[in-house]
Amino acid sequence: MYQIGFDVGGTNLKVGVVSDEMEIIANRNVAFPKGETYEKIAERMAEQIMELAKEIKIPASEFKSIGIATAGSIDASGTMILHAHNLGFHDVPMVEEMHKHFPEIPVFLANDADTAALAELHAGAFRGKKTAVLFTLGTGVGGGIILGGKMFKGGLGHGNELGHMIIQQGGPICTCGNKGCIESLCTATWLIQQGRRVIVENPISLIFEMAEGEMNNVTAKIVIDSAKEGDPIALDIFHTFVDSLSSAITSVVVLLDPEVIALGGGVSLAGEFLFQPVREMVKQKSFFKFDHGVVPAQLGNHAGIIGAAMLARNETL
Amino acid sequence: MYQIGFDVGGTNLKVGVVSDEMEIIANRNVAFPKGETYEKIAERMAEQIMELAKEIKIPASEFKSIGIATAGSIDASGTMILHAHNLGFHDVPMVEEMHKHFPEIPVFLANDADTAALAELHAGAFRGKKTAVLFTLGTGVGGGIILGGKMFKGGLGHGNELGHMIIQQGGPICTCGNKGCIESLCTATWLIQQGRRVIVENPISLIFEMAEGEMNNVTAKIVIDSAKEGDPIALDIFHTFVDSLSSAITSVVVLLDPEVIALGGGVSLAGEFLFQPVREMVKQKSFFKFDHGVVPAQLGNHAGIIGAAMLARNETL
Repeated sequence: MYQIGFDVGGTNLKVGVVSDEMEIIANRNVAFPKGETYEKIAERMAEQIMELAKEIKIPASEFKSIGIATAGSIDASGTMILHAHNLGFHDVPMVEEMHKHFPEIPVFLANDADTAALAELHAGAFRGKKTAVLFTLGTGVGGGIILGGKMFKGGLGHGNELGHMIIQQGGPICTCGNKGCIESLCTATWLIQQGRRVIVENPISLIFEMAEGEMNNVTAKIVIDSAKEGDPIALDIFHTFVDSLSSAITSVVVLLDPEVIALGGGVSLAGEFLFQPVREMVKQKSFFKFDHGVVPAQLGNHAGIIGAAMLARNETL
Repeated sequence: MYQIGFDVGGTNLKVGVVSDEMEIIANRNVAFPKGETYEKIAERMAEQIMELAKEIKIPASEFKSIGIATAGSIDASGTMILHAHNLGFHDVPMVEEMHKHFPEIPVFLANDADTAALAELHAGAFRGKKTAVLFTLGTGVGGGIILGGKMFKGGLGHGNELGHMIIQQGGPICTCGNKGCIESLCTATWLIQQGRRVIVENPISLIFEMAEGEMNNVTAKIVIDSAKEGDPIALDIFHTFVDSLSSAITSVVVLLDPEVIALGGGVSLAGEFLFQPVREMVKQKSFFKFDHGVVPAQLGNHAGIIGAAMLARNETL
């Protein structure tokens, strides 16, 4: 049996045919048609399904479900995209719209961080687990939660906004307007800000050299790589980052006592240089004095497609 | 049908016969026999069951279950009390020990904060809810979580240590040794510390008057009552408390999107003077911009007995 999974982001619109063994049989990746109406976008998505059916030589009616992972927030009924600023979507009845094209196929919709956790459950770091939490560390911080062996959609159906847990009251201003949220401290954005500060204030650092003295050249990778090379200023920044991230993970650990925590997103590519000190600090900060397991997310770029394709299965579990 | 519920605390050992309608038909409240061996204590508990059976004139064999709510931490199998410092219990096989006295009756064991949430689910503020969180604000901060309409025991069976979520990195030192945990900022203990500081530093306050200038007379109630009377210094302390508590609740709200949050414990007796500003600040700090419902816990002193008696039902749900 085959399921369709869409991963709808501000840059790319990805879609794949996923087998019951969680393999991507065929896929497409096109630029997100920004500025188009949602009706037009749904039409384009429907066309992609038809193309994929043709490619693998089965009628589209044989797809068992269509799952859509999207940036932004979903309504409690799981049928509307309430707000996805990157996509220009507001109150978009995406499930209904897709049904117009495929009235016989069940359509599911979910936030992309939630589906990423679902993908890890079926095909990655959360296989066989009942309670697990995914942090995606990128420009912002997203999160997906597995509870009772299923994707947790929030008690009231709003999903989670794990990035806006408060770990430093009165701390830096967050994108949400509050202070000291995880998202204000544990992102690539924070690392870049710190790196730029170094260039302005204190050029005697490898960060300055790697960024050629240009603020706009600073990336999270440059800051992390400078720390890896032993640059003291970069190490200082990196230690503060590890401190914040371990506080964030600790808060989730003492609340949910999860079997495993996975870290994904660009910053997680720092590898063991990041994971090893994070594990140590979480163990030190957590009331539960043992290792809850902080591991890399496994699915990377395909998490969206696979998670979306698994939404039907999540409903029937 | 009748269930037995025990509430085992460092001061009192309470027990009751609870009906299916969550009424306490008969109960006992004795001083906790501190210093006795656990075998002796279990024997005393068994005697109490026999007395209660006699009082309500049924054979003890008709009790359908025995539930034990205890301070401290429980092992993942739910049969051992790992540590309950107040009770002098370490690695106590309480379920096994109770079984020796009543081999035919199922025995259940859980942490008292968890059972308090269970009691609210069956007979209090959480009736009909699937996702709810209880904060007990006393000397420390305890927490109980309802997920999927059941008492959540933690992903690995360790329960939760909600009081040790971090809301202020680098903040005051907590009882657990870390800094800025909820328990370091949202307790009666914190209010008392602040009140004492006032007496030392700045006696022009109603707190000084009410405590008759004696540090040891300062209670959380005195600080709150002084704030209620409009004393500016007490109000300042109280506002900081509300700020911290709303950060703590916000962190739980954005993670779990609960239907309702209940506050219990001594500090919650401050009533709407506390609840009203907490609700406002949570709404302001939460990424979800609506009222998740912050309400008083309803069961007070009987939460332990009722929750313990409901443990059998929680298992079969």
